[in-house]
Amino acid sequence: MAAPDQDQEYWTDERSARLALAHVVEPGDPGTAELVATYGVLDVWHRLRARGSRSRWAGRAAAFDLRAAIERTRACGARFVVPGDEEWPGQLDVLAGCEAVQDRTGPPMGLWARGARDLGAVTARGVAMVGSRASTSYGEHVALQLGHDLVESGIPVVSGAAYGIDAAAHRGALSAGPGDDGPVTVAVLACGVDQVYPAAHADLLAQVAARGSVVSELPPGEHPTRLRFLARNRLIAALSRATLIVEAAYRSGARNTVTWAQACGRPVMAVPGPVTSALSVTPNRLLRDHEAELVSSVEDVRALLSPTGQDTLVGHQEPPAPIDLLGETEKVVLEALPGRGSVGLDELSVRAALPLARCAADLEALSARGLVTETLMGEWQLTHRHLVRRA
Amino acid sequence: MAAPDQDQEYWTDERSARLALAHVVEPGDPGTAELVATYGVLDVWHRLRARGSRSRWAGRAAAFDLRAAIERTRACGARFVVPGDEEWPGQLDVLAGCEAVQDRTGPPMGLWARGARDLGAVTARGVAMVGSRASTSYGEHVALQLGHDLVESGIPVVSGAAYGIDAAAHRGALSAGPGDDGPVTVAVLACGVDQVYPAAHADLLAQVAARGSVVSELPPGEHPTRLRFLARNRLIAALSRATLIVEAAYRSGARNTVTWAQACGRPVMAVPGPVTSALSVTPNRLLRDHEAELVSSVEDVRALLSPTGQDTLVGHQEPPAPIDLLGETEKVVLEALPGRGSVGLDELSVRAALPLARCAADLEALSARGLVTETLMGEWQLTHRHLVRRA
Repeated sequence: MAAPDQDQEYWTDERSARLALAHVVEPGDPGTAELVATYGVLDVWHRLRARGSRSRWAGRAAAFDLRAAIERTRACGARFVVPGDEEWPGQLDVLAGCEAVQDRTGPPMGLWARGARDLGAVTARGVAMVGSRASTSYGEHVALQLGHDLVESGIPVVSGAAYGIDAAAHRGALSAGPGDDGPVTVAVLACGVDQVYPAAHADLLAQVAARGSVVSELPPGEHPTRLRFLARNRLIAALSRATLIVEAAYRSGARNTVTWAQACGRPVMAVPGPVTSALSVTPNRLLRDHEAELVSSVEDVRALLSPTGQDTLVGHQEPPAPIDLLGETEKVVLEALPGRGSVGLDELSVRAALPLARCAADLEALSARGLVTETLMGEWQLTHRHLVRRA
Repeated sequence: MAAPDQDQEYWTDERSARLALAHVVEPGDPGTAELVATYGVLDVWHRLRARGSRSRWAGRAAAFDLRAAIERTRACGARFVVPGDEEWPGQLDVLAGCEAVQDRTGPPMGLWARGARDLGAVTARGVAMVGSRASTSYGEHVALQLGHDLVESGIPVVSGAAYGIDAAAHRGALSAGPGDDGPVTVAVLACGVDQVYPAAHADLLAQVAARGSVVSELPPGEHPTRLRFLARNRLIAALSRATLIVEAAYRSGARNTVTWAQACGRPVMAVPGPVTSALSVTPNRLLRDHEAELVSSVEDVRALLSPTGQDTLVGHQEPPAPIDLLGETEKVVLEALPGRGSVGLDELSVRAALPLARCAADLEALSARGLVTETLMGEWQLTHRHLVRRA
């Protein structure tokens, strides 16, 4: 096949064949993935174009116009990135060895990318955040917060571009301030990178392109289909170090992305939710079945990503309650005091089953803390009842 | 020591010594547990009463009045059940071999029980449900539902008697209808079984006594203290086959009960909740750290209790969506149809990359399902657009 005269060096036969296959073959097609793995893209493309080809893609291949395809890519301001390019995300190579999921498999022929940032740099160390379109305000709140906190921690977000969790994850990421070179967020589409789907996300996608990257394995102009969403999900999982599911109903595309993460051997994390919420059925079920690790915060995510894992989980630190600061016999004395009224030292010693001298010393210490008070009659009473009855 | 004349046969020396120790020694006292394990209750009681005893409990022992103690037990309508009695819950024996938790340890000297039901029968196969006093409506809803469903499944509930999760668990259990002989619910108190704490739970405790059992290792008349709550928690855990935590903040007595369940080698289950809820911090953290199994429903609880475990987890069954009923090429044809407008068979065959005959057959099948419609011009269009774009 002949590339156009201008920049013939850039449009090598290999790049052109990848562009052609990306136009003609549905993404993740298992038969083509196998052929490409065996014969390489050039050979597969030539076979498809050969007269008398009985491939299901032969009709589309015959109609393919390379010059027009390159022009469409240029017109929408996207680059077509292929393996071997400096900015190719190497983490996608994992897809070459993956089992098929829902009849999709294999690495993409190439990726259209929009955005000024280097695709490899902006996706490196990324974490996928996925979930339902029909999310609740709980799920959106958590996705926003985690998106923000991940980017603040130097971890870019990878997601789709749907309503709900996808949009909240991107918005959270965009609200963080990692500086011009810091990681931000990547939207992986199931349609061309020039398409806006859903239409209400025009501004969101423009912001993602401006500070991160919008990518797709589908040519400009293409619309999403069910199979394309399924194929797109493998890219989200493979581009990311881990996949985090925030909210998803029993039936959900996000569950498919999780299956891809598992197929790629990447960790799966899930945000739990109310067992009464249909939107938490999938994360809760993944946790129940030990298919995901529970995360509540960016600290949990970072701990799971760090080489030492669980050991570095950061504890939730709360100041000790006043009763924790007491010695063991001081606690006993405190509890031996009546809820109402006062008691003498002798009786208290029997009640507490402690020697008189120990009791007297502990009462002094408790008094210094303001927990007990001596009456005018020389008896002792509680100052703060509420501290005593806490189990 | 001499028992009162009446029913001397019942008040054996052993039972009397246990009654005495239960009055004089704080529940779960580690020193006494060790002595009883070595020398037996009779010997330990005689040493305590001996002139010149330097035990911290000697003062209380000297003041103990057996006849009055028996009379108080009788007056409140409770029985004092001890090891060897037919209704003694044998599952408590696990406490003899347990490590101390928060300085409490060992089996109880005996248990005061209120309620017409046999204590052993009513606690057998029980599951503890524990959680926060300051629960949310979410936690109470789940505790009510699980309490009801457990009892309907033949599993009694074991809990405390506090506000919040404890009360919701009992109310749920009492709302079930297992018949007069079926299991219901058991309240384990940190005070005497004649005490009502909190006072607002007078009716609830009366209902628990009427259809289940109210038990305590503390003598009638005794009030709760922090140490007694900690000791009580070991009884809740040891009486139950498993401990289920519904809602609990970072600091919580329920966490202590979980530690006891772990010390007893009993399974721990947790109901997840929003990561934004302070009341779900402890269950979520137990799940995160793999210290508890996630449960959403009584089916999950039963699956974990069954000998075969995970294998019998009952799946959440939903009817298949229409698209699941389609053949693989039917789905491809459906997706190749334009979102708006219609298309001829020839073009559809190229779009779908399928042979004409296959396309035509699939269109017939899709038409029979009402998913596609033939136009007057002999072209094809989608009937239901929404089915196609679901990823």
